[in-house]
Amino acid sequence: MERIDLLGRKNYRLIQDTDAFCFGMDAVLLADFVQAGPEDAVLDLGTGNGVLPLLLDGRDKGGCFTGLEIQPKAAALACRNMVLNGLQEKVRIVCGDLKEASALLGRAAFSIVVTNPPYMNENQGLVNPDEAKAVARHELRCTLEDVIRESAAVLQPGGRFFMIHRPRRLTEILTLMSRFGLAPKRLRFVHSFADSPAEMVLVEGARGGKPWIKTMAPLIVYGAGREYTAEIRRIYFGEEEA
Amino acid sequence: MERIDLLGRKNYRLIQDTDAFCFGMDAVLLADFVQAGPEDAVLDLGTGNGVLPLLLDGRDKGGCFTGLEIQPKAAALACRNMVLNGLQEKVRIVCGDLKEASALLGRAAFSIVVTNPPYMNENQGLVNPDEAKAVARHELRCTLEDVIRESAAVLQPGGRFFMIHRPRRLTEILTLMSRFGLAPKRLRFVHSFADSPAEMVLVEGARGGKPWIKTMAPLIVYGAGREYTAEIRRIYFGEEEA
Repeated sequence: MERIDLLGRKNYRLIQDTDAFCFGMDAVLLADFVQAGPEDAVLDLGTGNGVLPLLLDGRDKGGCFTGLEIQPKAAALACRNMVLNGLQEKVRIVCGDLKEASALLGRAAFSIVVTNPPYMNENQGLVNPDEAKAVARHELRCTLEDVIRESAAVLQPGGRFFMIHRPRRLTEILTLMSRFGLAPKRLRFVHSFADSPAEMVLVEGARGGKPWIKTMAPLIVYGAGREYTAEIRRIYFGEEEA
Repeated sequence: MERIDLLGRKNYRLIQDTDAFCFGMDAVLLADFVQAGPEDAVLDLGTGNGVLPLLLDGRDKGGCFTGLEIQPKAAALACRNMVLNGLQEKVRIVCGDLKEASALLGRAAFSIVVTNPPYMNENQGLVNPDEAKAVARHELRCTLEDVIRESAAVLQPGGRFFMIHRPRRLTEILTLMSRFGLAPKRLRFVHSFADSPAEMVLVEGARGGKPWIKTMAPLIVYGAGREYTAEIRRIYFGEEEA
């Protein structure tokens, strides 16, 4: 089944297939974390229905976009989403395998890579019996190493990498980024409450940078009364913080 | 010059040499972060004037302690501090080089290692012209790699490692821990304010554990009015949180 959601900026709309993976808070937080300008060529590794290019263009982050997606059905939906929003010239959707991104799209061809990859490896969590959802959530078609290796390969020197992932895998994330020449530069942990452990982590890396890293202020989702914090309201709805 | 400070638990007192490095908030936060019981043999790598064994014993964390210190003057002061507090039987102070800790003290001889090592490598910060202070702050006599390698060597399988360090060096910390078989298990970032970047990070590792890591709730030092937060008051003064 399909449904259409409003994305909140520029009146962009998103068709989602409710039988497949639907976007959640992580895509919105990642779009907020990304720093990009009109000069940037942005690649979204594993774009799904194309939500990240829409969220980024809605925030004027990026000049042109490529979305790479291995599942033909999701890639076709992403194409329809770009047409629906008049972005078919600005956003190119490619159906192909992330593991071959640099061969398909060219080495050093992008200034920015964004990715919201599957979080879970084979030892974690129940694998969804629905294949489209399982591929989006579990590392069935690609591993974290594939994502980081290909990101490094498609980035220009000095190009930047933005990812959202699970904090429990932070050691692997930072170790793999170092190994493939993506220096971790910035981290931001996302906590449901000010006194609860982190549930997501936003990571920025630079192709060929120095290994010093900045850990930003924590991003807290809910206040003590379970209401959204001022920062989450800003990220979601564009409201100014007090 | 010497001065004597009260440490707040069990009326322990600490003689400090004001010409050398005096303990600060980092030692107190590390003592709070450590998890240890009466069965644990604890090694403090780079004990300085012995503040960490005193802070840990004051919290009943650890059964017996060894403090290793390369500077003879600091090691002598640490011995006096143990006598002052009647702990000369429980805390052994050894004057020696951290880089040879496993040769001096034995491989797999401890169940817990704690360390508050020099934070800065040669490219960072002004080196203090006073040598005693410089050795405590800069990696002149040991590197982060020495600290982690020797910690792994002196720990029993399953033994745990607790360190406080600077977040900017997190990639090196996690990469070195993985390389030497100290799986990072727990992180806690310390922020001056809820909306400022992290200034310190507390790290726990396990000898031979799985690489999954938990990032705890952030530790915030000051509230909006620059007063200590309830958690800092608990850590410093033992006050119960509301």
